[in-house]
Amino acid sequence: VSPRDKLIPVEELAIFCAKCFERLGLSPADAKLTGEALMAANLRGVDSHGIIRLKVYIDRIRAGGTKLDGVPTIVNDHDAFALLDGGANLGQVVSAKAMRLAIEKARTSTIAVVGVRNSSHFGAAAFYGLMAAEEGMIGFATTNSGPFMSPSGGSKRMLGNNPLCVAIPAGQYRPVVLDMTTGAVALGKILAAAMENKRIPTTWGVDDQGQPTDDPKAIVEGGSIQPMGGHKGYGLSMVIDVLTGVLTGGEFLTSVRGLYRSPEKSQGVAHLFAALRIESFMRLSEFKQRMDVMISALKQCPRAPGIERIYVPGEIEDETERQRFRDGISISPALAEELKTLAWELKVETPF
Amino acid sequence: VSPRDKLIPVEELAIFCAKCFERLGLSPADAKLTGEALMAANLRGVDSHGIIRLKVYIDRIRAGGTKLDGVPTIVNDHDAFALLDGGANLGQVVSAKAMRLAIEKARTSTIAVVGVRNSSHFGAAAFYGLMAAEEGMIGFATTNSGPFMSPSGGSKRMLGNNPLCVAIPAGQYRPVVLDMTTGAVALGKILAAAMENKRIPTTWGVDDQGQPTDDPKAIVEGGSIQPMGGHKGYGLSMVIDVLTGVLTGGEFLTSVRGLYRSPEKSQGVAHLFAALRIESFMRLSEFKQRMDVMISALKQCPRAPGIERIYVPGEIEDETERQRFRDGISISPALAEELKTLAWELKVETPF
Repeated sequence: VSPRDKLIPVEELAIFCAKCFERLGLSPADAKLTGEALMAANLRGVDSHGIIRLKVYIDRIRAGGTKLDGVPTIVNDHDAFALLDGGANLGQVVSAKAMRLAIEKARTSTIAVVGVRNSSHFGAAAFYGLMAAEEGMIGFATTNSGPFMSPSGGSKRMLGNNPLCVAIPAGQYRPVVLDMTTGAVALGKILAAAMENKRIPTTWGVDDQGQPTDDPKAIVEGGSIQPMGGHKGYGLSMVIDVLTGVLTGGEFLTSVRGLYRSPEKSQGVAHLFAALRIESFMRLSEFKQRMDVMISALKQCPRAPGIERIYVPGEIEDETERQRFRDGISISPALAEELKTLAWELKVETPF
Repeated sequence: VSPRDKLIPVEELAIFCAKCFERLGLSPADAKLTGEALMAANLRGVDSHGIIRLKVYIDRIRAGGTKLDGVPTIVNDHDAFALLDGGANLGQVVSAKAMRLAIEKARTSTIAVVGVRNSSHFGAAAFYGLMAAEEGMIGFATTNSGPFMSPSGGSKRMLGNNPLCVAIPAGQYRPVVLDMTTGAVALGKILAAAMENKRIPTTWGVDDQGQPTDDPKAIVEGGSIQPMGGHKGYGLSMVIDVLTGVLTGGEFLTSVRGLYRSPEKSQGVAHLFAALRIESFMRLSEFKQRMDVMISALKQCPRAPGIERIYVPGEIEDETERQRFRDGISISPALAEELKTLAWELKVETPF
């Protein structure tokens, strides 16, 4: 947070986002949901997937690539699974519907999986995983995305920096939330280094010839993000593309459009959600107790030199959420200007 | 393959393994299955999970920790899920039963998940994933294991180097098989470096104080394997321990016994298997065609300098399998001696 940034209460920003979407024709309920999904990312410290994306979402809506009148439709439906066509609507609207469906099905089937094709960028995966965790289930959320990673040994972007989220309820502790991408690093970090003319570790990405580089611009301009752990990240990213794009009959590999490409065309993003009902295995209270034992043991692990605390997945994000819920979300002068212009165009009041 | 190694036909080795298990009281069908599972690992080039483990499996049976009369029992059963108690039998016997159950259930439920507690080391995860792929399904297999990894920032072994396998059928190509551990490297590589007094990259592991080390012995003697991709591998390993040990009511974290510890006590390993029926989403032939398009595109990706081929997950293992099926499995003189002693004790004939 720079001293020139403004701290805005999260409720006010959520309402602002919702009003922008409503003005473009989204239903009040779906507009509220999308605003909350963006704010959930900012609250958890994942600013790259928060309000900073509002403008590009709205650009795509105005250009016609994202269709607010596209109705997410159930193409195929059974006890433990469903297949949805997202109608090229906002990824948040489509995904929340899909995850709710998975949760409802899992109440009777224990495990349920819902695939989605023809959707858009869904923001941060943790939002959907946590929907299941709050219902006493283990939630899984994944998506493909515009190409930004080469297969190991390759020099062309073919796979997305695809994320995987697993959210697990606990008792005294907050839910464990693993929300990771399959690339060595988030694109945001590379973009930030490029803007600041900084060198980066050569393990982050390769140039357009497939050579490891310490120049972030070489990655942005035609290079690729390296997979996490070499062939492992490549394999995970490919498997996610299969479970989303290939399996749902949607787009995969380079047919998926990145958020910033051709705003007049739909992105063709595909997702997969699953919910696993814990009560089928044991009483939820017993499971939560077991999770508390596990979390407590990990946090009490003897520490390496210089380490002050051991964290479990999602713990840092959870602490950030509490702090930001109290203090507000930080908006930089540049972002405030961008949002003011947007507000003026859409005739919506800003909270700053 | 060293010139002193012997190449033995895979069928003969499979029969040899099966006879050893039969002699100790395992049913002929289960003995055959376990021999085949060990050989499947050797065929795919995963020698660390093949016949090299026969002795420790048999040691545990003779010491009483692995119970050949332990009947894998269904504790809980529903349309799309089941929970099994493995009865401390061989992991291969228990796991094949669990995966078969998941496949049968998925024929009607589309997705099915089977959790297992009180089992033993199950060998290479790909064996179970491929059972589903051969039935036109996507197979998932994972397990917890004896502690060999610290949480990020920690200096004590608390989590296993837990593997995750996803196996996906293709058309003209062989199934895609991702079978990866969540640690930076396999234990076998560290053991090999320790035996040869070699230094290793400091990203592989930490010593017993949690400090990165280039000395493989410092890892073996009380240190830990580093998680893959830092906190990502730690998070994945923990999530796997939840989905196996915590969720099934089995052992987790340091309560899981490593294969080489206290052979008179059961290991308390827990697994999770899932099968996803592709035909519910689209015709299997169409899916396979889409997989072929994907695999072909990835393999044709422009290559980085010095790279001769782009592989998809499981492709190298598949080529090794064809070669070894033809040429035989390589047995080193030391392993041959160990197996001959075992054969003499069990009054079984060896094929070498």
